[in-house]
Amino acid sequence: MELALAEARAAALRGEVPVGAVVTDPRGLVLARAGNEVEARQDPSAHAEILALREAAARRRHKWLADCTLTVTLEPCPMCAQAASLFRVKRVAFGAYDPKGGGVEHGARIYAASSCHHAPEVVGGLRETECALLLRDFFAERR
Amino acid sequence: MELALAEARAAALRGEVPVGAVVTDPRGLVLARAGNEVEARQDPSAHAEILALREAAARRRHKWLADCTLTVTLEPCPMCAQAASLFRVKRVAFGAYDPKGGGVEHGARIYAASSCHHAPEVVGGLRETECALLLRDFFAERR
Repeated sequence: MELALAEARAAALRGEVPVGAVVTDPRGLVLARAGNEVEARQDPSAHAEILALREAAARRRHKWLADCTLTVTLEPCPMCAQAASLFRVKRVAFGAYDPKGGGVEHGARIYAASSCHHAPEVVGGLRETECALLLRDFFAERR
Repeated sequence: MELALAEARAAALRGEVPVGAVVTDPRGLVLARAGNEVEARQDPSAHAEILALREAAARRRHKWLADCTLTVTLEPCPMCAQAASLFRVKRVAFGAYDPKGGGVEHGARIYAASSCHHAPEVVGGLRETECALLLRDFFAERR
């Protein structure tokens, strides 16, 4: 989560909503790390999670990341939650809960839906306060 | 839908699950067209819809496609349904319904969830038989 937080902080400095994600293998080796790049790329699918998952699979030269963990500073949205399922990650660990836009513990609850054929283990609330504060500060500054 | 079907057929010839997608502007101009590229890229996020949305936004040099229609041969999965919402497309038109993996009319029902902040208009069942047959033939051949 330390690396994901660093990616989130770097994203904030670029004017992006501060979310960071890391994909690690079972030994804890970092396969990919990314921050949100929606504004820079003008691509709403360029969430940190999608970028990190795609990079990790490219590095592995395989579409599945069945033994990997996706660690992200914010509860993934439904797009990213479903992507983690499609990449078959073993575990999704996230920091802040997102009652408005999250799709794991809130809203679409992707992994509980019948459209989900692989549900990763989920751990929420890791370093929650730090992760949430980063977002709160970012939006407070913009208002 | 004719173009989306052509993209789906081309995908099948490449050994990809035959799904095709097209993004059009209000005048009917094609901004982007794509077929599924999951196998070629070894990237489970390379669904036809994501590729077409990303290309259309790149062509527009703007992250929102607020006046556009996404036409796709199969009911989008939750990842793609949420992506269409994040790109703020006006309308999602699809061919075959997907009771097992679809996320619009089935499963996670993305646009009805509280995590959805922009719900496109939805039209399902366009040239449904042709779209479904393409998928059925593809999977029948593989069995």
